[in-house]
Order: sequence, then structure tokens, then C-alpha cells
Amino acid sequence: MAHKEILAAALLTDADLTGGALEVNSPIDGALLGSLATHSVSDVQAMIAQAKSAFNAWKLVPAPRRGELIRLFGEELRTAKEELGALVTLECGKILQEGLGEVQEMIDICDLAVGQSRQLFGLTIASERPGHTMRETWHPLGVAGVITAFNFPVAPFAWNFALAIVCGDPVIWKPSEKTPLSAIATARIFEKAVKRFGEAPEGLLQVAIGGGEIGEVLTTSRDVALISATGSTRMGKIVGPKVAERFGKTVLELGGNNAMIVAPSADLENAVRAIVFSAVGTCGQRCTSLRRLIVHADVREELVERLKGVYAKLPIGDPLAHGTLVGPLIDADANTSMKKALEQAKAEGGTVTGGGKAEGVTGGYYVHPAIVEIPRQTDIVRHETFAPILYVMTYRTLEEAIILQNDVPQGLSSCIFSTDVRETEIFLSAAGSDCGIANVNIGPSGAEIGGAFGGEKETGGGRESGSDAWKAYMRRQTNTVNYSRELPLAQGIKFEI
Amino acid sequence: MAHKEILAAALLTDADLTGGALEVNSPIDGALLGSLATHSVSDVQAMIAQAKSAFNAWKLVPAPRRGELIRLFGEELRTAKEELGALVTLECGKILQEGLGEVQEMIDICDLAVGQSRQLFGLTIASERPGHTMRETWHPLGVAGVITAFNFPVAPFAWNFALAIVCGDPVIWKPSEKTPLSAIATARIFEKAVKRFGEAPEGLLQVAIGGGEIGEVLTTSRDVALISATGSTRMGKIVGPKVAERFGKTVLELGGNNAMIVAPSADLENAVRAIVFSAVGTCGQRCTSLRRLIVHADVREELVERLKGVYAKLPIGDPLAHGTLVGPLIDADANTSMKKALEQAKAEGGTVTGGGKAEGVTGGYYVHPAIVEIPRQTDIVRHETFAPILYVMTYRTLEEAIILQNDVPQGLSSCIFSTDVRETEIFLSAAGSDCGIANVNIGPSGAEIGGAFGGEKETGGGRESGSDAWKAYMRRQTNTVNYSRELPLAQGIKFEI
Amino acid sequence: MAHKEILAAALLTDADLTGGALEVNSPIDGALLGSLATHSVSDVQAMIAQAKSAFNAWKLVPAPRRGELIRLFGEELRTAKEELGALVTLECGKILQEGLGEVQEMIDICDLAVGQSRQLFGLTIASERPGHTMRETWHPLGVAGVITAFNFPVAPFAWNFALAIVCGDPVIWKPSEKTPLSAIATARIFEKAVKRFGEAPEGLLQVAIGGGEIGEVLTTSRDVALISATGSTRMGKIVGPKVAERFGKTVLELGGNNAMIVAPSADLENAVRAIVFSAVGTCGQRCTSLRRLIVHADVREELVERLKGVYAKLPIGDPLAHGTLVGPLIDADANTSMKKALEQAKAEGGTVTGGGKAEGVTGGYYVHPAIVEIPRQTDIVRHETFAPILYVMTYRTLEEAIILQNDVPQGLSSCIFSTDVRETEIFLSAAGSDCGIANVNIGPSGAEIGGAFGGEKETGGGRESGSDAWKAYMRRQTNTVNYSRELPLAQGIKFEI
Amino acid sequence: MAHKEILAAALLTDADLTGGALEVNSPIDGALLGSLATHSVSDVQAMIAQAKSAFNAWKLVPAPRRGELIRLFGEELRTAKEELGALVTLECGKILQEGLGEVQEMIDICDLAVGQSRQLFGLTIASERPGHTMRETWHPLGVAGVITAFNFPVAPFAWNFALAIVCGDPVIWKPSEKTPLSAIATARIFEKAVKRFGEAPEGLLQVAIGGGEIGEVLTTSRDVALISATGSTRMGKIVGPKVAERFGKTVLELGGNNAMIVAPSADLENAVRAIVFSAVGTCGQRCTSLRRLIVHADVREELVERLKGVYAKLPIGDPLAHGTLVGPLIDADANTSMKKALEQAKAEGGTVTGGGKAEGVTGGYYVHPAIVEIPRQTDIVRHETFAPILYVMTYRTLEEAIILQNDVPQGLSSCIFSTDVRETEIFLSAAGSDCGIANVNIGPSGAEIGGAFGGEKETGGGRESGSDAWKAYMRRQTNTVNYSRELPLAQGIKFEI
Repeated sequence: MAHKEILAAALLTDADLTGGALEVNSPIDGALLGSLATHSVSDVQAMIAQAKSAFNAWKLVPAPRRGELIRLFGEELRTAKEELGALVTLECGKILQEGLGEVQEMIDICDLAVGQSRQLFGLTIASERPGHTMRETWHPLGVAGVITAFNFPVAPFAWNFALAIVCGDPVIWKPSEKTPLSAIATARIFEKAVKRFGEAPEGLLQVAIGGGEIGEVLTTSRDVALISATGSTRMGKIVGPKVAERFGKTVLELGGNNAMIVAPSADLENAVRAIVFSAVGTCGQRCTSLRRLIVHADVREELVERLKGVYAKLPIGDPLAHGTLVGPLIDADANTSMKKALEQAKAEGGTVTGGGKAEGVTGGYYVHPAIVEIPRQTDIVRHETFAPILYVMTYRTLEEAIILQNDVPQGLSSCIFSTDVRETEIFLSAAGSDCGIANVNIGPSGAEIGGAFGGEKETGGGRESGSDAWKAYMRRQTNTVNYSRELPLAQGIKFEI
Repeated sequence: MAHKEILAAALLTDADLTGGALEVNSPIDGALLGSLATHSVSDVQAMIAQAKSAFNAWKLVPAPRRGELIRLFGEELRTAKEELGALVTLECGKILQEGLGEVQEMIDICDLAVGQSRQLFGLTIASERPGHTMRETWHPLGVAGVITAFNFPVAPFAWNFALAIVCGDPVIWKPSEKTPLSAIATARIFEKAVKRFGEAPEGLLQVAIGGGEIGEVLTTSRDVALISATGSTRMGKIVGPKVAERFGKTVLELGGNNAMIVAPSADLENAVRAIVFSAVGTCGQRCTSLRRLIVHADVREELVERLKGVYAKLPIGDPLAHGTLVGPLIDADANTSMKKALEQAKAEGGTVTGGGKAEGVTGGYYVHPAIVEIPRQTDIVRHETFAPILYVMTYRTLEEAIILQNDVPQGLSSCIFSTDVRETEIFLSAAGSDCGIANVNIGPSGAEIGGAFGGEKETGGGRESGSDAWKAYMRRQTNTVNYSRELPLAQGIKFEI
Repeated sequence: MAHKEILAAALLTDADLTGGALEVNSPIDGALLGSLATHSVSDVQAMIAQAKSAFNAWKLVPAPRRGELIRLFGEELRTAKEELGALVTLECGKILQEGLGEVQEMIDICDLAVGQSRQLFGLTIASERPGHTMRETWHPLGVAGVITAFNFPVAPFAWNFALAIVCGDPVIWKPSEKTPLSAIATARIFEKAVKRFGEAPEGLLQVAIGGGEIGEVLTTSRDVALISATGSTRMGKIVGPKVAERFGKTVLELGGNNAMIVAPSADLENAVRAIVFSAVGTCGQRCTSLRRLIVHADVREELVERLKGVYAKLPIGDPLAHGTLVGPLIDADANTSMKKALEQAKAEGGTVTGGGKAEGVTGGYYVHPAIVEIPRQTDIVRHETFAPILYVMTYRTLEEAIILQNDVPQGLSSCIFSTDVRETEIFLSAAGSDCGIANVNIGPSGAEIGGAFGGEKETGGGRESGSDAWKAYMRRQTNTVNYSRELPLAQGIKFEI
Repeated sequence: MAHKEILAAALLTDADLTGGALEVNSPIDGALLGSLATHSVSDVQAMIAQAKSAFNAWKLVPAPRRGELIRLFGEELRTAKEELGALVTLECGKILQEGLGEVQEMIDICDLAVGQSRQLFGLTIASERPGHTMRETWHPLGVAGVITAFNFPVAPFAWNFALAIVCGDPVIWKPSEKTPLSAIATARIFEKAVKRFGEAPEGLLQVAIGGGEIGEVLTTSRDVALISATGSTRMGKIVGPKVAERFGKTVLELGGNNAMIVAPSADLENAVRAIVFSAVGTCGQRCTSLRRLIVHADVREELVERLKGVYAKLPIGDPLAHGTLVGPLIDADANTSMKKALEQAKAEGGTVTGGGKAEGVTGGYYVHPAIVEIPRQTDIVRHETFAPILYVMTYRTLEEAIILQNDVPQGLSSCIFSTDVRETEIFLSAAGSDCGIANVNIGPSGAEIGGAFGGEKETGGGRESGSDAWKAYMRRQTNTVNYSRELPLAQGIKFEI
């Protein structure tokens, strides 16, 4: 399908795509997709005011009714899955299967959120005083600012949005400047749901197009109760303190430097599949991409041989084309970072296989994913380079492997391939991985949406999607109701006036 | 009991009380209780190193076993209740009943924490993939820095400590410079429990004596995973960003500006009791002190008359003496703040009753609690003055009352006296109070320890003690275990190598 | 719409409606709707075998995937809402608004169940032993037999079915002999969902048409893991022990004898509306119908006058007709029971208003709802008569009212109209209503589907729909995994071989 | 220690031990421990009346205060641990380590219950209607009848009692006729706690001494809300239906027939230890005793050899003596059952090792634990014989092993020894064990008290101790509170009068 057809199928119009200063190019071939108008600081302030007003109405709409809006959104997403998935691929360069997978995640979280809308459970609590009862109730929090990154243009938005709406919070969405079109198309799909729903206040979803100045308005505004931001650790170091200073709340999903431990007992066939999918998928530009391989000495040679074999035959090219597994890097900067990282890796003792420009593909930054065999966990290994570079290290005892796994500043995802339950459970225990996600016999991909997604340390500590992640979008209130005709004090205190 | 006897009964020795630069005076009579040695920055760094080492051992001790240590601590606290309660009164000036009440809260949270040690429940989660299972497990977090304020020298510490220890986290406690003795005595009581327990690592509790420089070390150290700080909003504005910048976690319990709405249907007898206890108790220096009274026009006159009658007869004086209800302010600064606030209130249109120096009590800063009738919610009303000043305003509709209640920067506690369920439930709903605590027919005191304590907005958003507050002391890990011999991907993605 | 059109719209065919021995008549006009074939004992045994086989496949399908089938069922129900609602009315005689309301409940529970399919949460539990971890997981239970009653032909089925399917349990549904058509039509709607779903095993839903002999097979079969039965207490007394004897599980939803307390402070306008809807709706044939009115002496006269005024003008007649509020009784037996009850009530001192045959409506058993003023809670008041009879009693203290409320054998639903929070909370406390449902300022209707539905005492103790009612459809498994290389015993036991 | 000293240390007096018709003999040597007076039917009826009266007072005592009584009970049990443990051994014959272990379980559950008393959490639920709020609250249930068996004279009582008291339910305890002394001694310990507590109603714990006629009164009385019974499946088949007929609640803990699967990858050293402890501990008279060993063909020979080696050297004899691992069977009937089972096993093809009378120990029924190698899972294997008989079978595929494991009528406990996570997780999955307890690399012992204890199928389905087992002792109430001034109906129904 040609670019234009994809844009048109996603209901993007000439008005959307022209007349502005923000140029959006497809990483597939560098083609200009549109020149978008950006929002000014005062535009965003107006959005915040609108969202605040929407909040005052929406917070009073019963939660199960709010869930109905997300149910309709899920229906519309089902209808538009192909179109939106293709647009995601066009704009960020991930292969179509993954573009569709993102939309499927949006659909899944809508399903979850609909059920959740009747399960925003607080607690009733037995009081220590006669004639008293206690409760904990969760109320809507306020306006949520959602900041997303180019590599997942729509799914993380949906994780936040579906829950935020169900929890009573309007959303202002600042997508990456590199992928605004997917955001605009998504908002349009949501509008369809709103129309069917009938009576939602204006401003439940507003998309703010632009750069850091927009993030600045959102993070510093006292009227934005929550900032949920996906992006780099560098960004998180700026956003976190700013929001903390004004006592706002944050959900931060920052860098990952995800490792796999491969034990001698591992099923190597499955390990190879998991490694390749997680190391080269999305061209190594996932927050959960596999970047470090910690292999037991006994299986290292065999495993690396097999990996090199697969890497040598990876279909690299147009991500819209059937059969492609590796699409382009997002842009020239990414390409430069990758080159620099590989140079540094060599300087630090690494042996690089692959990593060069892919032949016969033009227009975008297509590279051969790289395998770097490296004797120690050097600086470059401890750094997250957003590119398909896989560092391979060796271990002899599980304890040693876990120390390597944990000895990076990031704490998003991790995994072990082992069939020995004594090893796998240690890996999952307090003595094991220090990451927010720890998997066994699958790659370091995030949990399904029923589990909470996010990580520790420089990954920022936020959690999204399942488990009780919805609580981030609500405020907790603890109530004590005295229904007696007395007024006893707690802790047995006497105070007689 | 004389001061010396109280100090001795709390097992404080001459070595504790002499030879240092930090002078601790009793607010009761200004008497010097001790000149304590303070810790240097490098002392605190050493404490952090010690705590980190303790963490590595303690995190592997099974949680129910960790609970046993807190059970023993609870037993020791029961034994030492009278002595520690008296020391609290001596050091911070609250009446003995309240000093004992604080120790009772310590005991209560120990009981809760012991049960909790077998209920640190994560989740098992059904996976969308055959042959897969998901889990969410909570692991120990790391070293916790607990910073407490003078007005509650021991209870908030215990809320944090009991849960932190059960959750696997050693604690470094920085008490207020005004109340270090209660901290030292508490640590000594804990040591008894440790001895009986037998095999705990060194450094589960370390007390750091000193001022802001100690807080600075704790808040900026990457090895202190959690800062739980009780204090002023000003302090929170400094601590929050510092910890956020290094991706640490915080539990902040900052200022409150707590109101009571008194509706026409209220039981005025109970309302008067609740108002007096919460407005003049601890000499108005609780974070949950009642500072604002929002009274329906129909009952205002009667209520204020009754309050003035009670205020006029309040027994003010030595907090150790039986029958005293109002002890001293903590120090000269507090006295000055109170004076200034009353002056400003007058300038803003307020009519002040009381508020002057109490007659016939010397040595400390003893004041008559003040009632300030004020026509609007002016700047001084919206400001938290840590003193027994009660601002009285009038309302005509519940909506108006709720707007007044919410229109302050703080969001800790709130309450309504009304017997009309249609009013009380609106107050507790999303349309009602915006505070973390909202009570009905009791004052704005915190929840019992089964509920979570803390507030919104400038109160900082932290939660302590009951409900799921324990999660702040642990890290969450989401696991997917593939026990099949296949490797399916989530969201139905195909990726065939 | 004519009967035939309704049948046809619900996709019932001549084959469905002819050739059998079970005559189904519409209570609206007594018209024969069909002569249905019934299932034999061996048919049902074959169904059980089929369901067991389906269970062995379905239990291995991941729960979120099972949820997808229910999502599709919900979509199909949305499409078929009008048609199924009309059929319900045609077959059981409730007014069309209520018929549609039942289908809406089916849709709601599907939404809930879809979200639930990713939230069948068990627990992870900290072990007291090093190197051990504990878990609680919920697994599919087995075949569920669902027995429903004529008065709610479809909604209670759906409460069970949606959760059972999501939990992994195939269902055999035995509808009332009086309302089999609604069941057949529902199964047909489900078949559409199954087709869209694609790969479900045969036999996830089987409808068994017939009488007690079918229930007997289901209740005594060891291959039916769960019997969820809605019906009379008499039925429950038979079913419960039979299933208990073979260690099966039950969810019993039996008789109710629901009361409302009307306090002096009540909003009488709302009380009247609530009373009428709950006492005459479904012609008094709901399990949650209001049967007893316990009115404070001060408001009794006014309330009863107003009720009599409304009762005198109730539109009685064809439930399919717009504006009708009271349809027919289900059959002649119901009519006779009502007559007998009113006679007994008179004999026991009651004064009856209404209760006779309604004029100008023919073909069915149309009656005037009755108000019976009665000085004491006599035998007939304590008995559940499935007809629109409302007994009115008087009280003077709340304690007295609660004693009256609780002094019946049934324990389903209850409510209080009072605006005094001290009364309403007592009613909801351990000192208050002994029912499974206790409402304030609404009638004794069941909770929305987010809450659990069911009652205590002779109501049978079962719970359906929301909260953790899903656990009834699963089996709980507690796991301890030792991943250490040691084998310590619990409770510190030593056993050295 | 001589018998008399043990009795005296447990505070049993001559008055307790003489004058009645119930002879209690020690299985250690057959010595008469006492001739106890038994309770008549009318005694038990009076107990029920007393308990009901206690319930009406106790249910109004705040739960955290009820927890305090259990905390004191825990303290008293700690003090009396040695004495009560020895009495348990004296009366039921289990070795002293296990007697003490039972008391430790009592202590553990008290700790859990104290924390639980502040965590009897219900839910707050978002309503679908504006101006409405929903809640689920748990209230005290009523009188609990606890029936226990000889093999665990005190721990299962405590699991029930600690939670029941905290939940608000007085308990009538019917211990086994074979072990009434442990019950009387326990009640006396509780009395000490009651005295310290101060203000508990009379009758929170009553012990009913006697046989089946007492159980009959309890199970059929409508005033006993809950029957929690531990014992045989035969007993459960009688109790279950009787309680069901009167709509009471039951927690049944009946027979087990627990298996271990030993896979080729198992750590055989640990497996041997686990097998011996669980097969011969308590002389094979635990509900969780290991009765079936399902061993992979590859390791069978080695494992059985090692087992026979250990069995040959087991120290059999006086359970009070240090070093003994196998004490006596409870009585002559048990001895006869064992003999008969072994004979039947031989007849069914089994080869028996051991099983005869132990030499050199007199006075009690001391036997050599038996190993029976048997080619198929025959009738006797599928039957629970309460004696130390271990049936050994062989398997080749895990699927086959799981079928063997599940193909018995009982469903209490199960375990697998395997280090292969693909096997262990299948065993724990819906495709694995059908038992309430499924362990990995430990024997089939119950969960620690943080988990729920109990089983499926003929084991009765009850759950005790941890997780949410406390809910069995409470009744659930679902509330909807309308605090608006409107009266909307659910499901959007219109009903305009």
C-alpha cells in the first residue's frame, strides 16, 4: 500500500498534513508524510483549562458508565485495526506485525478497563471503636498528561488512556514529535466512540503536537494532576523533579537495559527464537529490547554460533512488506548512536559481528543487527543504546550471572532461560533480578496487560496497565464514620472537657 | 515525676545526654534535658553502608520471621509504654494522655505488621498464552530513611518502621532536632527486641541525630531506596525533587489545613467535643489539628458561643499534670508565628477571641487557644500556622461549604458533622472533600492504623500504616513463566525466523 | 407485536415449538406458545458427558481467551436485546421495560466477565522458610449445572454463565419449565458468538428442557462440580443436601421476604416510588420483591394513604403494552396462592386493600396488588408468597424495627428509608439487617452487577455476579515451592533420619 | 516425664480426670489418663444458648479489640508451649517434636489473626448510578461448632478458633473422644487470656466432651451458624447434608490420599527425607500423610532401595523419648485397619516390606511402617487407611503420573519432586494436580498458616487458616446507598408511577 493510501485509510486529511512547521518523515524511505501545525504554549494552557472543566463533569459520571465509553472505543479500534496498524508502521518503521500488535494491545486494555470500571474497589475496614465504620474509597484524580515515545506510538498511550478515562481523568496526550500522525488518527477513532456514547464532556482527549515546550507546560502546571511519561532516563530526570516540586504525581517508564541469562539446561531452540525476536524486533528500539546476553560458559559457543547463523539471514527491509523482520532505525541520530556504540564497544574489548549498513535497501537507515562479544560488563554495555546491539557475556555460577544482570543503572526487564526450577525461582526471588519484569523461558518482553508494566531504578518506578496500576489515576480517601451518639477517641485517649 | 526520673526511666544515660552540641530543652519549662552529640555527614554515610549490608542479609530472611522481630518489639513497647509516653510529653510538650496514645499507636502498628508479615500478598494472574503463568511478587525494597517531626516524636516513626522491617528494609531514622531523646529511647527498646530475636543483622535501626545536613545525605544517596518524611510543605518541596532526580521513592506527609463543616442537623454536643479536642489538643500542633470551622449560618451563633465557653475554661499548663488539656507550644518561634498569624488575621478582618499568653504558667510558651471569626477564607486562613488558632467561617449551602473546604493548598484531613446521610455521603464522594482523610461526626484526626494515613495536594500524597501502605516499602515484580515447550508471542504477533 | 412475531424475531422455529409434551403458555393471555420436546434422563447424562469433555479442552484455553468468547456473546446480546427482551415478557409476563432490563443485566455481566478474565487473581505469599515461595492459584472447577426460575428467565443464567465460561466451566442450563423458550433463544444467541470465536469445544452451553427429573440428574451427578440454583427454599432444601452428600459445590439463591423500614426522616416521595416499584413490579414475583413494610408510627398514616392512592391508579394489563406497570401472575397456582395468603392474613388480623381480580383484562391472571395492614408479624407475613402482597407493620424504635426486619426465616434483601446517618449506618452494621443485601434510600433490589447478589439464612448463602463471586466457579490450589537445596520443615519441627 | 506430671503441668486436676464414663488412654502405653464426665444433649443445648448470647455481645465488640483477646491467647500459648505439646504427645502419641509443632501452629495463627482483626476488608464499589455508592461489608456470622480429630488435637482447633473469635463468633469445640484432655487444657489456657482481657462475654469457648450425639446436636441446630469439622469422609457425608438441609455453613476437612510424584530429575536425597517425614510421621495418621508414591521408572529402583534402608533403621517407640521418629498407632482399631489393608494390598498384587509389629516396645500399638510396591492403583490404594503404609507405583510420562495422582476420590494434598520447571509448573497448572494443596520439592504437608489449608473432592472443599479463609466465619453484606434526592433504577429501567 502506498503511503498516501495508508494516511487516507487512517482518515488523515490534507488539513491535518499540511501548513505547519513540524515535518514528519517515514523512516521507511524518508518520505515526507506531512508538515503539521504545532501547538503553542497558550494552546496547551487552553487544553488544560478545557480538560479541567471536563474533569469536573466526568468525575461525577458513574465509573461503569465511563467504562461504556471505553468499550465503544475498543469496538472502534477493532474496526480500525488494520488501518491504524499500518500507520504505526509507516510512521515509526516497526514491521506491520508489530504495528498490528500495538493496536491489539490497545484493544486488550480497553477490554480490561471496561471490566475494571466496575471493580475500582476500595476497602471497608473494621474500626476499633464501637459505632464507627471505616472505608477507603478511590476518587478520580484530575487531568492526566500522557507523554509517549516514538517507538510505541499508540499502545502505551492506550494503557494510560483507557484506565484514566475509566477512573474519571481527562487526558492531554503529547505524542513524540516523530509520530504525531498515529496520535491524531487515534484521537479520531476515539471521537467516533464519543459520538456513539452521546453525552461525554468536551476534552476527554486532547492531542498536543510539538516538542519539549509542551512537555514543560504539562509538567509544571498544577492543574495536571498526573504526568505519565514514557521516554528516556534523561527526560525522566527532568520531569520527575518538576512534578515533585508541585506535588503532582508521576508514572515514569524510562530506559531499560534488559538482559537474558541462558543456563546450561536451557532449551536453546526456544532461547534463540526469544533472543532474536527481542534483540532485533522493532530494530532494537523497544524499551524492552534485549541488549545483554549472559550465557553460561558451557553453552555459549553453541548459542552464539546459532545466533550468528540466524542473524546472517535476517530479512531486513521495508517493514510493510510481508516477511520482513527488521525494519529501519527511526532516523539518522539513531544510526549515529549505533555506530558510536559499536566503536566504543570495540575500544572496550568487544568483538562485533554485523552492525553495518544493510545492503540493497535505501531511503531509510537500515542496519544489520549487531552481536558484540565482550569480556566484561563495560560502560557501553551498562548504557542503553537504542539500536539492535546485543552484548554477549559469559558466566559460570548463577550468582555471578545475577550480579551481572543487576549491575546496570536501569531496572526494566530481565529473563532467564533455564529448565531448572531451583534456578528459575531464585531468579524470581528477592535474591534474583532487581527488575520490574522478570521472565522465565520467554524474552524480556513486558507482561500481558493483566500484569503491571514498568521497572525499577532508572526505569522510573512507574507501573501501567494491569494489576492495581489503575490506582495511579485515582486519589485515595480514608473515611471514618461515627454513627454512634458518643465520641470516643482512638488509642484509648481520654480528653474530657 | 521530675525530668531526671523520666529520662532515667527511659534508660537514657549521662553518656547519651552530655558532651554534644545539640541542646534539647523541654517545652514544659525550658529546662535543658541534654546536650547531645550529633552525627556528621560521614557518620550518616557509614550508617547507609551499614544499612545496605543489613539489607542484603535481612531481605533473605523470610517475611514471617521478620514479623517475629516486630512482635517482640511490640511486647517491649507494651512494657515500656508509661516510660516512653512520659518522655514524649517531656520532650514535645503534648499532654501525657497523648504521649501514651502515641506509644499505643506504636503498639497497634506492631500488631498489624505481625499479621501483615504473612500477608504481603502479590497476585497470580492467568496468562493469555497456553503453557504460561503470570505472577506479581513483592520484594524488599532497600534502605529506608525515615524523617520525623517534633510534634509526633515516635508514632509516625513506628508506622514506617514496623512495616519497613517486616517488608525487609533496614531503617535510618532522623528524628526532629527538637525531639531526639524519644528516638534514642525507642531505639533502645528495639534493641531489647533484637536481643530476644537472636540473629538479626546489625543496623536494622540506626538513629541519626542532627539537622538538615543529615536529611541532605539521606535524600541524595542512591543507596537510600525510600525517603519517608513527615514535616512541612516547605521541606517536602525540597526533599521530593531531590529524591525524584535520583529515581528514589518517597512517602511524604506534609502540611494540613484541616476543616470541619458543621451542618444544621449536627449533634452540637459532640461537635463541640470534637472541635476542642482537635483544635487545642497538642496545642494545635498536630498535622491533623482542626484549623478551620465552616459552620452553617443557622447554628453558627450557638456553636461559637458554646466553644467560647469551653475555651474560657480550658486547663492550660504542665502537660505531665493530671487534668491539663493544653500544654505549651514547642518553642519561641512557634509563639511568634502564632502572634503574627493572629495579627494578620485581624488585618484581614478577623475577630480574635483568646490567643494571648496563658496566665500563671511559666517557663514555656503557654498560650490561650484562639478562635478567629473571619468573614472570608483569607490568605492567613489558607496558610497552616502550627498553633491553636481556629478560624470560623459561615456557609449556607453544602456546595458552598465544600468549595471552602477544598480551597486551600493542603489536602490532609477534613470532616463533617451532620446527621443527614445525603450530606455526609456527598462529603465522602468525588464531589466532596479533596483530602486524603474525610470523616463523619468525628474530628479530622487520622484513621486508625487499619486505614491508610496521608493526604493529597501539598500534603504530599504519601500513605502510611494500614490498607496497602506496606507496598511503599517493597518493589513489585511481574513475572511471566513459560512452562510449555513452545514460544508463542503476546498480542498474537507472528515473528518467524 | 403479536406473539408469533416475537417468537420468530427470537429465532425460534417451528421445530423448536412443536412436537413435544411440554406446553408453554404465555401468562399474558394463556395462549399456547409451543409444545416442546423435553430431555430424558439419558439425554441429560449425555449432556454431562459432553460437558465434561468440553471441560477438559476448555480448562486449558487461557482465561483471557475465554473472556473473548464472552465479549462476543455480549455483542450478540446487544444486537438481540429488543427481541430477547420481548420474548422474556411474552413468556413470563413481566413488563417490557423489565424484560429489557434483564437483557441489559446479561450485557453488563458480560462486560464485567471480560475484564474479569484477566483478573482471576490468586495470591503470591511470603513463606516462613528460606528458599521457599507460596502461591494460591485458581483453576477451572468443572461442569456447572445452572437451574433458573420462571421469574427471571435469563439474567441469573447470565450471571452464572458469563463467569463460568470465563472461569473455564461448561454449563448445562435447566431453565424453568415455564420459560424454556427464553433459554433456547439465549443459547442460539450464544451460538452466534461461538461461531465468530472459532475454536470452542462443543458443549460449552447445553439447555436441558424438562422438570424435576432433570434437576435430579444434575444434582446427583459427581461429574457436575457445581450446582447454581435459583428457586424456592423448598427446592434448596432438597438440592443442598444432595449435592453436599457427594461433596459438590452449590450456589443457592432461594426465597426472600424483603422488608423496608421507613423512618420519620425519610423522603416519603422517594419511598413511595421505591415501594411501588419493588412491591408491584414483576407482579410481586421477584425474589427481591418488597413484601414487608415496617413504618414508623409518626409517618405511617401519611405513607399508607399515599400508597393506597398510587395503588388505586396502577395501570394493570398487557405487559407488552406501553405504560403498563403491572402484568399478570405467572399462572393459576400463583393466583390461588395469593388468594389463600390474603385469606390467612385476614384471619390473622390483617386489613386488606386491593388484592382482587383486575377488571377488564382477560386471558391471564391479572390482580390488583394488595396492601395488608397487620398488627403483628404473623405466620403469613413470615412466609414468602410469590404475589404482589405488601404487609404493613408499625414500629416506634429503630431497634424494634430491626428485630421485625430480621425475624423471618429468609435473608435476601432489606432496606431503610431514612436520612439520618446514625440510623442508616446502624442498619448496615453488625447490629442491623441480617440480609445479604441491605440498601439505604432505595428499594430492596439487588446490587448492580459489580456487587455480589445473594442472601443468608433460608435464602441459601450463595453469591453471584460481582465482587469475588467468580471464585465459586473455580477451585483454589495452595502451592509451596521449595527452590532451595535444603528441606526445612514448617513450625521449626526437627525430624532427622 | 511421667504421665502424671504431664497432666499436672497442663493444669488438669483430679476433678477433670475422674468421675466420668469416658476413659482416655494414652496410646503410648495404654495407661488410663482419666475417666471424664461427658456432656449430655441438654448440656450442649445449653452451651449453644450460652454461645448465642455471647455472640450477641461479642459481635458488637470492635474487631481490633477482639483481636487483642487472641493476642493474649497467643502469649499464653507461648508460655504453655512445652506443657501443652507434651500433653498432645501423651494423648495422641505423636512424637514430642510434632506435639510442640502443633502448639507452634496455634501460636502462628494467633499472630496472623491479630493482624487480620484490622484487615477484615470488604469492598467499596463504584455504582453505575449517580449519587449512589456501593459497599460490601463482612459481619460476624454466629456460633461456630468446631469438631476436631484425634490426630491433630489442637492445631486445627486453633486455626478455626483464632479466626472465629476475631471475626466475632463464639466457638463450641467438640474434640475427638480420644483426645479430650488437650482440649480441656487448651480451654484453660484461653481462660487465662480472657481474664487478662477483662470484659469478654461468657461462653466464647466451650468444650463439649462426648461422642457422635454431641456432633448431632451441633450439626442440626439452627443456632450453630457454622460447622467446621475435621475428620473422615464418612463423617463428612453425614455432616454436610445435615447442615445443608438447615442452610448452615460448613468447612469440611476430610480424608486425604496424598501422593508424591518423583521425576527423574528429582534431588533424591531430599525426596527421601520428605517421603519418610510425610509417610511415617505421626505414624501415618496425618490427613496429609504421604500414602502414594508415583516414581519414574528410571529412578524407582534407587529410590525404593534408599527408602527401605531408612525404613529399616527408623527409631520406633516412646514418642516422648528424644530421638524417636515413629510413635504408636492411636488404638487397636487402627492396628487392625492397617493389617487388613496390607492383606488386601497383597491380594491385589502388592509386595509388602515392613508393616509388622515393632519389637521391644510394649503397651501401645507400635508398628513398622510399610512400603507396598504395587503394579496398579488398586482399590486399597485408592482408599485412605490411617496408618503408615506407603504404596509405590511406577510411571513413564508425566501425563500418566498426573492421571494416577488425580485418580482417587480424595483431593487434599499432592507434590512433585522434580527440578524441571516445565514439569513442576504443569503439575501446578489446571492440567496438573486436582488437590487443594500442590507442592514442589517438599512433601504433601499443608501450607504454612499464611496459605489456605484444605482440599477438593471427598476432602470436602473447606479452607482454613490463611488467605481469605476468614470469610467463612463472617457473613457478607452488599449495600447500595442512595444519597441523591432522586431514585433512578438500575439497568436503565423506567417505571413511572
